[in-house]
Amino acid sequence: MRFTREDIDAGEIARRAALYGPLTEAVRELVDATIRTEVDDATIRDVAAIVRAATLRLRERQIDGAFGVRFTDHGTAMPWGNAVIGLRNALAPPLTIERNTDGLHWSEFTLGAAYEGPPGHVHGGVCALVLDQLCGVTAASNDKPNFTGTLALRYRRGTPLGPLRAEACVDRVEGVKTFVVGMLSDAGGVTVEAEGVFVTPAWARD
Amino acid sequence: MRFTREDIDAGEIARRAALYGPLTEAVRELVDATIRTEVDDATIRDVAAIVRAATLRLRERQIDGAFGVRFTDHGTAMPWGNAVIGLRNALAPPLTIERNTDGLHWSEFTLGAAYEGPPGHVHGGVCALVLDQLCGVTAASNDKPNFTGTLALRYRRGTPLGPLRAEACVDRVEGVKTFVVGMLSDAGGVTVEAEGVFVTPAWARD
Repeated sequence: MRFTREDIDAGEIARRAALYGPLTEAVRELVDATIRTEVDDATIRDVAAIVRAATLRLRERQIDGAFGVRFTDHGTAMPWGNAVIGLRNALAPPLTIERNTDGLHWSEFTLGAAYEGPPGHVHGGVCALVLDQLCGVTAASNDKPNFTGTLALRYRRGTPLGPLRAEACVDRVEGVKTFVVGMLSDAGGVTVEAEGVFVTPAWARD
Repeated sequence: MRFTREDIDAGEIARRAALYGPLTEAVRELVDATIRTEVDDATIRDVAAIVRAATLRLRERQIDGAFGVRFTDHGTAMPWGNAVIGLRNALAPPLTIERNTDGLHWSEFTLGAAYEGPPGHVHGGVCALVLDQLCGVTAASNDKPNFTGTLALRYRRGTPLGPLRAEACVDRVEGVKTFVVGMLSDAGGVTVEAEGVFVTPAWARD
């Protein structure tokens, strides 16, 4: 488990975000178009060849393995490879998580074709993915790393693809365990409820 | 909730799989390279422009909205937009799910940089995503559609990125509810346990 540090300032973070963000967004759009396209076979093959060539250019210099979670020397986290919030991860919607002074955490986001399970609806596992991330961030609001211990999801109805909102707050803390409740909703109300227990790992305890 | 049908045979399905599969795989590789690349800024911007142009070509003709779940007139499902098993979805690892005569369902697959949560480890929510899909397919082995009612996950330890195996079986059936147990494991044993209750929707009941 490796957390890496770099001596960079806010300006450098902003520069990198402005460089990698648009590439990632372009790849997200490509993922969507790959699912929905109805162009002719020759164009499909042509685009596949173009994408392979572009990938080779990116791979000319790359890190071994996954991105990890990087921090600046000032403690700013750059979880840019993260599957839900990662600025460089085209799988991530990505979620931007906000919080108010009462400890409520929330995010408003839109899920399209790439997140489908039942026709026209968000995959039940994607609902879990989003709520796990949000509940985990909420549990970590004490600034300690934590890992999901248990996560229980109750699906009240299907979650339609489109604009959604997720929110979560800490229910209680018992020793190294933080209990978080969360929910996912569309304009018509709650679709999925979540209860998560997050555990501070031994190496990060006081 | 729309399930569409098409009058196509196995040969046509194979033809489409051979056309769209390589494009999707190329996009999956691009997602991975986008996270891991360390090439210079000019190349990043250049590749972003190439990807945007490729996307425009695919979007010249595309379906409205998401892919849905399509069936042939012979009842073969083509859940090609699905976030976990979709042949046309670059977010999907994708999982290929097998089953034996005892009703055990399993899948062996590899998760790389795009599925990261904690450094070097699979995102807890991605574990949930994979297990939801596998448990759902297992519950549907009676050939009826079903939706996740509840899903409970217990994380025994971190799941390292790399080769993994998931398996699930039906524990019991009570009326319209099917209870499924599943697990995710690496070479060292079980990392996540799941229990899901899946419900047959009213329109698909006898």
